[in-house]
Parts: sequence; C-alpha cells; structure tokens
Amino acid sequence: MLRKTLDFMLYDWLDVESLAAAPRYAEHSRETFDSVLDACERVATERFEPFNRTVDVEEPRLDGDRVVQPRCAKEAADAFVETGLLAAAQDYELGGMQLPCAVEMAANAMFAKASIGLHGGNMLTVANANLLLAHGTATQREVFARSQFAGRWFGTMCLSEPQAGSGLSDITTRAIPDGNGHESDPLGPRYRLHGNKMWISNGDHELSENIVHLVLAKIPGPDGRLVPGVRGISLFIVPKLLVDPEGRLTGERNDVSVAGLNHKLGHRGVPNTLLNFGEGRRSVRGGPGAIGYRVGAAGEGLRCMFHMMNEARIVIGLNAAAIGYAGFEASLEYARTRRQGRRISGKDPGSPPVPIIEHADVRRMLLAQKAYCEGGLALALYCARLVDQSRVGSEADVREAKSLLELLTPIAKSWASEWCVEANSLAIQVLGGYGYTRDYPVELLWRDNRLNMIHEGTHGIQALDLLGRKVRMDGGAALDLLQHRIERTRSAAGVNPAFAELSTQLGRALALLRSSTEAAWSTQDAELATANATPYLQGFGHVVIAWLLLDIAIATVRHAQDDPFAHGKARMARYFFDYELPKVEAWFRVAAQLNRTCLDTREEWFAH
Amino acid sequence: MLRKTLDFMLYDWLDVESLAAAPRYAEHSRETFDSVLDACERVATERFEPFNRTVDVEEPRLDGDRVVQPRCAKEAADAFVETGLLAAAQDYELGGMQLPCAVEMAANAMFAKASIGLHGGNMLTVANANLLLAHGTATQREVFARSQFAGRWFGTMCLSEPQAGSGLSDITTRAIPDGNGHESDPLGPRYRLHGNKMWISNGDHELSENIVHLVLAKIPGPDGRLVPGVRGISLFIVPKLLVDPEGRLTGERNDVSVAGLNHKLGHRGVPNTLLNFGEGRRSVRGGPGAIGYRVGAAGEGLRCMFHMMNEARIVIGLNAAAIGYAGFEASLEYARTRRQGRRISGKDPGSPPVPIIEHADVRRMLLAQKAYCEGGLALALYCARLVDQSRVGSEADVREAKSLLELLTPIAKSWASEWCVEANSLAIQVLGGYGYTRDYPVELLWRDNRLNMIHEGTHGIQALDLLGRKVRMDGGAALDLLQHRIERTRSAAGVNPAFAELSTQLGRALALLRSSTEAAWSTQDAELATANATPYLQGFGHVVIAWLLLDIAIATVRHAQDDPFAHGKARMARYFFDYELPKVEAWFRVAAQLNRTCLDTREEWFAH
Repeated sequence: MLRKTLDFMLYDWLDVESLAAAPRYAEHSRETFDSVLDACERVATERFEPFNRTVDVEEPRLDGDRVVQPRCAKEAADAFVETGLLAAAQDYELGGMQLPCAVEMAANAMFAKASIGLHGGNMLTVANANLLLAHGTATQREVFARSQFAGRWFGTMCLSEPQAGSGLSDITTRAIPDGNGHESDPLGPRYRLHGNKMWISNGDHELSENIVHLVLAKIPGPDGRLVPGVRGISLFIVPKLLVDPEGRLTGERNDVSVAGLNHKLGHRGVPNTLLNFGEGRRSVRGGPGAIGYRVGAAGEGLRCMFHMMNEARIVIGLNAAAIGYAGFEASLEYARTRRQGRRISGKDPGSPPVPIIEHADVRRMLLAQKAYCEGGLALALYCARLVDQSRVGSEADVREAKSLLELLTPIAKSWASEWCVEANSLAIQVLGGYGYTRDYPVELLWRDNRLNMIHEGTHGIQALDLLGRKVRMDGGAALDLLQHRIERTRSAAGVNPAFAELSTQLGRALALLRSSTEAAWSTQDAELATANATPYLQGFGHVVIAWLLLDIAIATVRHAQDDPFAHGKARMARYFFDYELPKVEAWFRVAAQLNRTCLDTREEWFAH
Repeated sequence: MLRKTLDFMLYDWLDVESLAAAPRYAEHSRETFDSVLDACERVATERFEPFNRTVDVEEPRLDGDRVVQPRCAKEAADAFVETGLLAAAQDYELGGMQLPCAVEMAANAMFAKASIGLHGGNMLTVANANLLLAHGTATQREVFARSQFAGRWFGTMCLSEPQAGSGLSDITTRAIPDGNGHESDPLGPRYRLHGNKMWISNGDHELSENIVHLVLAKIPGPDGRLVPGVRGISLFIVPKLLVDPEGRLTGERNDVSVAGLNHKLGHRGVPNTLLNFGEGRRSVRGGPGAIGYRVGAAGEGLRCMFHMMNEARIVIGLNAAAIGYAGFEASLEYARTRRQGRRISGKDPGSPPVPIIEHADVRRMLLAQKAYCEGGLALALYCARLVDQSRVGSEADVREAKSLLELLTPIAKSWASEWCVEANSLAIQVLGGYGYTRDYPVELLWRDNRLNMIHEGTHGIQALDLLGRKVRMDGGAALDLLQHRIERTRSAAGVNPAFAELSTQLGRALALLRSSTEAAWSTQDAELATANATPYLQGFGHVVIAWLLLDIAIATVRHAQDDPFAHGKARMARYFFDYELPKVEAWFRVAAQLNRTCLDTREEWFAH
C-alpha cells in the first residue's frame, strides 16, 4: 500500500522523472528509480519488518564495554549497506548512485515503516557523511565520508550533554590543541577532547568496522576559559578507532567509552548512549584526551552542524509519517476482518456482525490516519524534491528551493511527529483491547513514534525557529514564495467544481496565517511575539498539509479519474478540510492576539 | 499538591460538609473525612507509589496455573484493605463507613495517582459488590457483597469475549440450569457455565482468599439455541472457590481456569486474563461446567451490569485524571529545577541558564496539564457529588441528580481518558529526552493512561451513548438540567468583571452545543445523526469542562482571594477558555452539518 502511494507521489505528483533531463540525473529513468525502490522494499520486508518486535524486546545491553545486540541487527545493517542506499544520492565518483533526494527519501520511508529500531541509525551515517562533504577537507571527505557512504563505518552526531540539550550554548566538552604540529595533521587540525555526550544514537555497536563521531566542543581561549554562547562551539571528527590518512585502522583505540545505555520508551533497537570522551579510561598515543580532528573553522561548529540538522529534521518527519503508516496499514487490515456490532440503521441482532470498517467512527479513525500519514509523507517528499531542485535548477530555482526548504523544515519535522503519533494512537483505538497488547504491532509503533517530537530539536524549538526566524528572514521572502505556491494550487482547484470549495477554505486559512504572522510581530517584543509559537506552528502546519493534500487530490484526478485510488486521495483531502483545517482558527487566534496567559503565569501559581 | 486541590474541590467547591446535615452522614464532619483522606494518602505514598515501576517491570506471570506477582502487590492489597476504603461508602451494618461518594472518590484518586498498576483492580471489587447490593438476593448480598467489602474476597467483571468486546450481544458463553432443584439453591438459581472471557482484570491472583466473578452469559432456549441480541443475556456469580451459604469456603475449586495472561502496554500490575469457564479442566461436584448463581431475572443481565458499568465509567475518568496529575507533578518539579536556555528578551550567553519553567512554552504545557487533569478530576468528583445528592436529597433532587449523572457519565469517562493521556504526553515533552527514558515516571504514566480510552466502553461507544441516547432521553430533560446549571455558573461569572468575558464565551459554546444537537437530529436517520458522534462528544466534553473550571475559579475567588492557589485556578480557567474552548467549533461543525465524509467513504478507497 505504501509503495503505491510513494510511486504516485514521486511520479504523478512530484514529477521526479523530469529530473532525468538534468545532466546530473541523465543516466536515470523511472526504470532505474523503480529498481532501487524494489530492492529496498524487498530488504525492508524481509530483513527489517519481521524483527521490529525482536529489537524492542532484546534491547542493546552492555557486556563490559561491548554493546550487545541481537543477530538480526547486524544482518539488517549488512543488508542495508548492500542496497547501496547510504550513498544513493551521492556522486558516482564517491561510489554513489546520483539518485534524486526524493527517491532516496521514498526508499528510506520503507525501511522506517518496517522498523525504526533497525533503521534509526542509518540516516545518521548519511547525514554525518554529507556534512563532511560540505565542510570537510579533501582528506576528511576521502577518509571519513567515503567510508561511511560505503557502509564500512557508521556515523553519529554528538551534540547534547547531560546538562545541555535544547540549549547547546551551554555545552562544556573541551577541545585542546594536541601539542606542536597539531595544525598539520593530514586528517585535520588535531585536538584532545574531554567531556560527556548524552543521547547519542548508535553511539556504540559492532555493526560496522569503525564509528565516526561528529562532536561539538569548545576550544578554550588563551585564559583557559570557554567562550559563552554558540560562537565558541567548534566541530570535530572523533573516530572510535584511530585511522591513518589512507583510511586504514591503525590498531589504536581512541579514548571514547560508553558510560551507559539509555533505556527508552521506544526506538529500543538503536543503542542510545552516554559517551565519555577523554576521561582517561584508554590512554591513546601517550596522552590524555580523545583525539579529534576539527572540521571547518574554529567557532563555526554549530553552523556546520546545522547543515546536518536540517537534513536530519526532514528525515524525522519522514520517519514519523512512515511509522504512522505502519499503524494505518495494521489497523486497516484489522478493521476489514474484525467483525463487531451492526450498522445503526436496521439493526437486526440475528444478523451476523459486520466488519468494523462499516462503522462511520472507524472510518473516521482510518481517514484521519491516512490524512496524517500521507500528509506527513507528502511534506517530507516535497522537501526532498526541493533539495533536488536546489541541485539542478536555474539560479533562481535554486534560490527559491533553498528559501522554501528553510521555511518548511520546522514544519516537516514537527507536523508529522505530532500528528503521526496521534495516527498511531488511533490505530490502537481501532484495535481496541487487542491494540493495547504487545501481541499486535500498534502499541510499539505508538511508543516508537513518540520520540520524534523530541529529538533533533523539540517541538518548542521548531516553533521558535519558524515564528522567530523563518517567517521573517529576508523580509518574509520565504513566506511569499510559499503563498505563491499555495495560490497556484488554489487556482488549479478553483476551476474544478469538486475542489472549488476547498480552494476557498484554504484561501481563508492562508489569510489567517498571514495576518497572524503580522499581528504576532506587531510589536518589537520578541518574547511576546513568540509566546504562542507552538500553537502558531500547529496552525501553520495544518495549512501546509491542507495545501499539499489538495494538490495531491488534483494530481490524482489528473492521472487516475474515478478509480478507488483517486477517490481515496480526494476523500482524504476532504476529510482534512472538513475535520482538521477548521482547528487552525483556535491556534492562530492566541498568536495573533499576543495572548499573555502562559507568558504571565507565575511559577508559584502552579505549586498548589 | 493533589491533596490540596482535592480538599478545595470537596469542601470549598462541592460543599461536601453540608452533607452531614443528612441523617445518613450525621456522624460525619470535615474531621472524619480528613482522617480517611489522611490515612489513604499515607498508604498510597508508602505502599503504592514506590512500587509503580516494580509492577510494570515484574509483570504477573503464570507458574502452572498460579498467577505470580511481586510481593509488593500483596502488601499493597493488604494495606488497601486495611484502610477500609472498599466499604467506605457502604452502610454501617455492612461494615462500611457511610462516607459520601465524593470523599470515597477523592481517596481513590490518591491511589490511582500513586499506582494504577496496584490500584486498578480495587475499584472492580467495590463495583462488583455494589451491583450485588442492588440486584442480589439477601443471601448473595450477605455472602458475596459483604465478603468483598471486607476485602476477604476480590471481584471481577466478566463481559468481553475474544470475539465480542464492544458488541456484547454476540457473547456465546452459555449457562445451563444445573439439574433438578437448581432453582432452590440458597445462593441463587444454580447454573453450569461454559465459555471464554477476555480482558478480565484481576481475573486470577493470590491477593485475596477467593475471587467473585460476575459473568454475563446466555441461557439457551428450549431449542438449545441462544437468543440473539442483548435480551438473551443474564448475569451470574461464579466464585473461583465454591462457598456455602454462610460464606465459608467448601474446599471445592470451581471449573474456572486461566487460559492465558494478556501482555499489555501499561496497567501491567493488574493481571489481565483470558478465563475459561467450564472447560472440564476441573470437574466440580461430579459434573461439567463452572457453577454459577444467577443474579436478578433471566435476560436482565446487561441491565444489572450497567449499574456497575456507570459507576466504573466514572472511576475510569477519575483514574485517568489522577494518572495525568502524577505526570503534571513530575514535570512541574522537573521544570522548576532543570536549567536550560535563557529568556528570549535580553539573552546574555554569559548568564546562567534559567529553570525551564521560565519559558512561555513550558508554562503552556504545564497549564494545559493542570487544566486537563483538574478538569477531569472536577468532573469525576462532580459526578460523585451527584451520586450523594441522589442518596440524600429530596425526591426532585434525586431525580435531577440521576438524570444529570446519566448525561455526564459518558463525558466523565471519555473526556479525562482522552485529555489526560495528552497531559501525560506533555509531561514527557517537558522532560525532553529524559522523559522518553524509563528512568523517569512519565513514560510509564503515558502508557498506563492509554488504556482508559478503551476499557469500560471505548470512546466511540461513549459517543453513541451520548448523542444517540443521553441527550435525547425524556425529551432532552437531562440536557435542559445541564443547561440550567451552566447558566447558574454564567450568572455568577457575569457579575464578576474578572470572569464576565468567560461567561460570554461559555454562553456561545453552549448555544453551539444545543444547536448542533438539534441539527444532528434534524432527520430521523440515526446512522446519519451519529456519524459524527465522536467529534460531538469531544465538543460536548470541552463545554462541560469549561463550565466546571469557570465554576471552580469563581469558588476559589470566594474562598481565597489573591493567593497563589486562587491565581492558579483562575489562570487554569483562563488558559482553557483561550486555548481550548475555541476548538469546539470545529468539532460541533461536522455534527451539525450532518457531514457524510466518513460515513460515505467506501472500504476500497482505503485499500490503495
């Protein structure tokens, strides 16, 4: 089911085939895209999905300082490497396939749907390597990026510390120049790192030959003190096992150790670690500290890392949608086969019970799931398509794509992570008591999905990013671009009697979005303007999804009039406009009125 | 913290002390109420709360046919029995304390907050015994009710079967008259039962001397066939161990066996069982079948059971609110001590990070939790107060109370179970990554609370009960009564400048509720009228909670002007009116417009 919708979105809606006209994708066609998707679908179905419960139950554990995982984890990792997806979007010369980002994302969706516990770490490796491509030296790219694209080594991103999660400016991991000649190491300026990193996914394991940590740390000033704020932060490559400039292991183990595993509510297949850097547990090359190589300029660490974060955030949205979709499929299957109760009209207790999909309320729960999951998926793929546009388009195309991506990233991350966990809850509800047991997958999906509103920037952080920064950058240029695209869809909808009413509703919601944005910034008080950033984010998200679902419904009619697939897409849009879009009024209202209810609540008022 | 709010709601808001004027409660006063609450708070704090994680991790397991639980489960059960709370509301002659129901509920809230895994089964015993008081014979009351009130035996309710959950009319458990003279057994008409019951909480354990199952089953007609529909259902007492008419164990074990334990997402402390009745695993008194004693008339089983269900449903709402409150307290504590980030205005990276409660968005999440949990709690206690009114009021009072109770029960059950699981999700969000780990209680609370939207009648069932039956019964009399009470609160609010605006908003929402109800029933098509029963239920719930929170805010000002407690209650109401109440428009809208989007969606439209 997911595959058919992915195909539709890629080919009929986003017209990914047209990318083949660009030199970069000249060797591609629908045929080559399909063969990648087919291979990935097969591996996801055979190597991931059957083991999703296994990796939940058999959590990673520490045996001495080894992280032990069930065999299926290694087998899934190997099978994933074999698909070549780690380098899917990379240049041929890097061993990649030069696939469009949209196709890469679609392929990843199938893995995330099959088992986030087995797949959660994979995209980290890709994002890590991509960052090195963008900001690393030639040698760093060759040694650390290429090895990750090939799946020989896996990567992490080490940002948070026990005392600093959302507030990265307060990290205290230190990086000290590693003696004379530290600037001339072929792998990059060499430092010794000391500190603790928290919540590190895939922070240790035996799935790959080596692990490439990308670590944020501060270089002390001449007075030995750390610079406050984010400007003091730099970025370092800290390999678990040291390597030479040819990318061979030197046989030395770096001073990086697992201080503990976090025991989570979900995502249990991914070893989540507290890492100690340079605590002296393993002396390396005769000195204290974990050896790391700086990436980019000193003080530029956060900027470099954000290159990776933006990508990671879109992937989070994609994952959330995919996990939601797994629940949608499971509950749809259940609703079609489970018999219970009778239609309300013409109840005859002597007649057999009907499949529960016959009940309007069950259909409501299925439609909501479909709209949430396909909406989240659509937005992630739309963002991926913008990435592609930014790679092959004209200069103006590139500018437009990048601007829209900046604006849509916090939505792609937050919207799916909020509503697709709700989709998973509805899947439980469709299954009733059975859904609440560990004999069915839906409870696990609900647990797995709950993380997505937290990692890679919490909901609140996304909201501040959107209202505090993105809608205002370049004088609101990105918002204008978005409006332009929405108006294009509205025009197309306006001429189709089936969609004209939806076009009007979308216009009203968009006007509300614009006026609320303006009202929120009607004073210069940033704290007041963003006091209701989260409801604003929720409203903004619903407008974006309404737009995309309408756009999809129009595309479906164009491609497949009057078949069940087209009806399903149109009905999903209709559901969203009837049941969901009207909620935006409540959300935008508090932002527009500069509501101070939360802002002014005093701490002691809670305490009783 | 919870205790202070309970005290306030009982004494200052619901004026429970005034009940002491009634002969039934003549021996009571605030002093006696307080001493019960004090004792319960102590036991909940010492015997329940510290073991909530234990019973989640050490799930009940089967050892042969014994259910094994950790020792803390037996210790908590014993301590609970010692509080006397099982019989709190009962007559002195039954060993009870003749406490008002509102006080009993408040005491139970403290146990539910401390550990639903340890407390989940207790209220079943009370509800079981209450049902027997209402519908049993003198001997059944004396033997089975009294033993449960004393805590010697615990009770269950056996309704669902593997193929019949929400659709009870399709149960297939059979009850066959047990030979000659079966009508003259002193314990009640004696039958032999055969069948399987699913999702039976506390279905087996070693916490009490015996277990009293209340079982729905069908008595075959003369042709040996079961009557279709609910009219064929009767109710039976099936003790695990047989007893004599004096309530002594006879030494015979009945043919009831545990076929398996359900492994759930939460509520793990409560053994949840699949029970086999009369499968011949234990021959008893030389014949096949589990011995059971009919309660009430044949064919009246569901009516009797609903006596218990209504009570159980209010308790579900109470539990949901209490579990929500536990998360609220945990996240408030965290927000006051965890330092992260800086205020948006006047950011100085050199200054120390602030406690996260300083961030407006964190306060929003705390206010929402407070409003959800105290709203749910208020409604459950309000319902309990109506129970008290129905026991000691004038004839008109009694009629009014019963009618309002019928109307509010589906709201009390559904509203808290929906919004307090959302509160638990917000508690996770406040804790961020830490909230997602099993080192903190909030993830467990979220899992525990998710059941409440399912058991004792799913959300969808409550919605049909409300819109399909309750708002229409007696020509809408209950709805008129509710409106009258809401108008009373609005009048009181209208004269206070601080609340006048809220009164206006509440008036608008109430008008919308009334007009939507009418519009939904503007045709005679019941299927169409109830096609959007769930959104209607959500809207209705928000109106009821807005009313109660406003009523509480008014009462607080009356009792405690200008202290943090009063500010907290008023601010909670303000939050709800600003952020939550506006949502009702979207929910009522689809009900009022007889929206057919879900109703008309065809099964095959989902399938692609």
